[in-house]
Amino acid sequence: MAAKIERNLKLETQTEGRQQQSKSDANLSAVRSKSHADGPQKFVLKTPKGTRDYIPKQMAIREHVFEEIIKCFQKHGAESIDTPVFELKETLTGKYGEDSKLIYDLADQGGELLSLRYDLTVPFARYVAMNKIDKIKRYHIAKVYRRDNPAMTKGRFREFYQCDIDIAGQYDAMIPDAECVKIVAEILTNLKLGDFTIKVNHRKILDGMFEVCGVPAEKFRSISSAVDKLDKMKWEDVRSEMIDEKDLDPSVADAIGGYVQHHGGFELLNKMAADEKLGNNKSGKAGIEDMNLLLTYCELFGILDKVSFDMSLARGLDYYTGVIYEAILEPESITKNEVGDACGVGSVAGGGRYDDLVGMFAAKGRKVPCVGVSIGIERIFAILEAKAKASGSKQRTTKTCVLVASGQKNFLEQRMKLVSKLWEDGIQAEILYKKNPKMLSQFQFCEDNEIPFCAIIGESELKEGVVTLRDMKSRQETKVKQEDLAADITSRISKIKLQD
Amino acid sequence: MAAKIERNLKLETQTEGRQQQSKSDANLSAVRSKSHADGPQKFVLKTPKGTRDYIPKQMAIREHVFEEIIKCFQKHGAESIDTPVFELKETLTGKYGEDSKLIYDLADQGGELLSLRYDLTVPFARYVAMNKIDKIKRYHIAKVYRRDNPAMTKGRFREFYQCDIDIAGQYDAMIPDAECVKIVAEILTNLKLGDFTIKVNHRKILDGMFEVCGVPAEKFRSISSAVDKLDKMKWEDVRSEMIDEKDLDPSVADAIGGYVQHHGGFELLNKMAADEKLGNNKSGKAGIEDMNLLLTYCELFGILDKVSFDMSLARGLDYYTGVIYEAILEPESITKNEVGDACGVGSVAGGGRYDDLVGMFAAKGRKVPCVGVSIGIERIFAILEAKAKASGSKQRTTKTCVLVASGQKNFLEQRMKLVSKLWEDGIQAEILYKKNPKMLSQFQFCEDNEIPFCAIIGESELKEGVVTLRDMKSRQETKVKQEDLAADITSRISKIKLQD
Repeated sequence: MAAKIERNLKLETQTEGRQQQSKSDANLSAVRSKSHADGPQKFVLKTPKGTRDYIPKQMAIREHVFEEIIKCFQKHGAESIDTPVFELKETLTGKYGEDSKLIYDLADQGGELLSLRYDLTVPFARYVAMNKIDKIKRYHIAKVYRRDNPAMTKGRFREFYQCDIDIAGQYDAMIPDAECVKIVAEILTNLKLGDFTIKVNHRKILDGMFEVCGVPAEKFRSISSAVDKLDKMKWEDVRSEMIDEKDLDPSVADAIGGYVQHHGGFELLNKMAADEKLGNNKSGKAGIEDMNLLLTYCELFGILDKVSFDMSLARGLDYYTGVIYEAILEPESITKNEVGDACGVGSVAGGGRYDDLVGMFAAKGRKVPCVGVSIGIERIFAILEAKAKASGSKQRTTKTCVLVASGQKNFLEQRMKLVSKLWEDGIQAEILYKKNPKMLSQFQFCEDNEIPFCAIIGESELKEGVVTLRDMKSRQETKVKQEDLAADITSRISKIKLQD
Repeated sequence: MAAKIERNLKLETQTEGRQQQSKSDANLSAVRSKSHADGPQKFVLKTPKGTRDYIPKQMAIREHVFEEIIKCFQKHGAESIDTPVFELKETLTGKYGEDSKLIYDLADQGGELLSLRYDLTVPFARYVAMNKIDKIKRYHIAKVYRRDNPAMTKGRFREFYQCDIDIAGQYDAMIPDAECVKIVAEILTNLKLGDFTIKVNHRKILDGMFEVCGVPAEKFRSISSAVDKLDKMKWEDVRSEMIDEKDLDPSVADAIGGYVQHHGGFELLNKMAADEKLGNNKSGKAGIEDMNLLLTYCELFGILDKVSFDMSLARGLDYYTGVIYEAILEPESITKNEVGDACGVGSVAGGGRYDDLVGMFAAKGRKVPCVGVSIGIERIFAILEAKAKASGSKQRTTKTCVLVASGQKNFLEQRMKLVSKLWEDGIQAEILYKKNPKMLSQFQFCEDNEIPFCAIIGESELKEGVVTLRDMKSRQETKVKQEDLAADITSRISKIKLQD
């Protein structure tokens, strides 16, 4: 029995986000109760379903990605805010349509009823309303929570990061909307993920289309979420879903099919403007005018080749009112990245305009129009991790420049004094936590951790007031005066960096 | 009625962490139901009890503090990890003694039972066990959750950051323990918070003391948590708590009182080593020997003057097995910081050794000794915020270097092209989101947001292929060739920074 439990434990202790995808919760409690019966309490060693730890190598990638994204957000003049990980339950109620069932609630332990945030957009709208803000351009990088079916190898988790930038305020049409597209294009380019397309559409075009096709108003949202599946499903299947599950008249579905299978640029937009039905529908016309401005501004920003007006793009969330975006990596660039199908194809950014959300919170329904995008960072992590693995390059996870070492006995005191001096001079330095470590194990530590220098002290160095500085790569040793050591290391490190 | 609701809403929309300290949850639902009755749904506009948003000015302080702390952690060779915000409920069970009641549970929505993390230490131990790690020096900066009584003006929240560094592995006695004290001393010094003291004590000294005083073994932890209150309560009150609430014999309490009211350095330690009872108790003796090493190493690290061996320091958490730490700011430095009693006195860091925690998770109880400290960042934020407010200095919350502007009509296209060019050259730049903004409102925007330069284009600039670059402070204007603009701005910005 003990052996079986151990195997079970082992199954669940795999790291790097690959643990327990198929294992059901029932299975887990079976392991748990067996362990209980077996003797001292054993824990099920795992992170909750759909979540993962980040190991240091992953953190290094994550920090690089955040740095690039924040640099871009700041380049566009955004300031940052943060909100609590949970909100009053009612703050989230009625904002996410069919997806509301995926919200994590906290247990009622007395006091307020709380839920984990589902995205950063609703908390942002609450923030804008609560602080009576008229305009703000803010970014927010934080984790959000969805009780979704996880697919962790594809970068789909129940706890995942969103990197959002939103522009709130009353402005001339489509100027901030176009800047959001520009920001996504810059970030995806800078992260060197390969070719990508930013799909754009407009809620008003969708609504106009549903209207002219004869969809009953109360079905707009549910038909919309069916249309949105066209990137993953064939039209025939979407059509069946509309007719069989959502009870739509087949002729209405076919009329929709005549529109949503198109994507393109100005030429498609002009065709729609000239479309007898859609072009003359009030909502459709307003959407087409907006879209025309958006494409014009994207052209001025030099990114029109990255943008595709896609009439099937719908996005599920209830709160969008205007333009909607979704960025996808092109399949060939995923293959080029040697990621294989581990990461799948898919959306790496999304967003849109939501002019009414703040009004749902604000006193007297004060309106603050907003537009924003969210970078879906987890899939980007997955791709960059796979790239790093494929390239086989060693990544450092610490910044240590020098190990203070000695081959002589009873030199702990001198090592401690010297490393302490280096810390005070701002040098990243370590000692082995042993009273009398062997010289060889100290060199080994440098190699294992790719520490470039070793500062060696012994009786003779002490007498001369020097330190023997060993370059771990070239194995060259130089005697450096104790008081010059920090400056000497700093200058050597900067030279290494220049070579990189 | 409408007016009353509005006043209520206003009460709850105050920002900066000062909202709703006294307002009870009952009160809130009253507001809520009134609003419902009144017409369209109104939301209670607040963050959950004990939590707050960070506004951009606060984020600027937070980022500065994190930067300093991470710099120090990395200087000491630490790598970083991250864990999910929630853990399996049973992962947290039995780790926090009396404080377990403060854990936030998630609602049972099917599947695993989950709780929000209470600290970063237990998730770290779970991580070390799960990944079968022998040694790691890691830092982790993340939010933790406690259903405590919040006192938000004093920096005590229900959602708050911890900045932890922990050293796991089998090492020679007290070397990593002393490095933890050194790290705390460096961080508090670098953050310029004024004078501080790092109190140290040892679980084994406490246990030995309780043993020789005649405390029954099953009462060690509860008496320990009473002793820990000596920093906030008089001895008489602690004594009463022991006798009246915890049913301790008065003579035993008095014997404890003979020890715990002392603090000092080597001289106190020597006195305790010579103490007939404690010095001959097995546990007490082992603790005193450790403490002697710790103070010796702290002396070598040059921080002995910051360290106080304090026999009343106990810390509540169940998992400590060896040395324990707590750093406090001296009251006079809080006054000097002009913070007033807004921030109270108190602990800004704490930690200790926990050699058995990983074994509670690991297969076959494999032991991995650990020691670590946690920087209590919220109180530090509160102090630095109050300092910033008192100094009256303006803080920028964006990094924008230049606004691209025009005084002429129909120049949106040119502004968009130019700002896009600057973004591509890596310059932090903005335009107003208006088709035809007035020159004055563009200058005003620069002043409001402390943007140092304004790049102006009009017909004449366009013809000459130049941009008029205005220094917003000196009001000097220079004509710069379009292609040189980015380089010119970069060089001007670097000169401003040098002057800072």
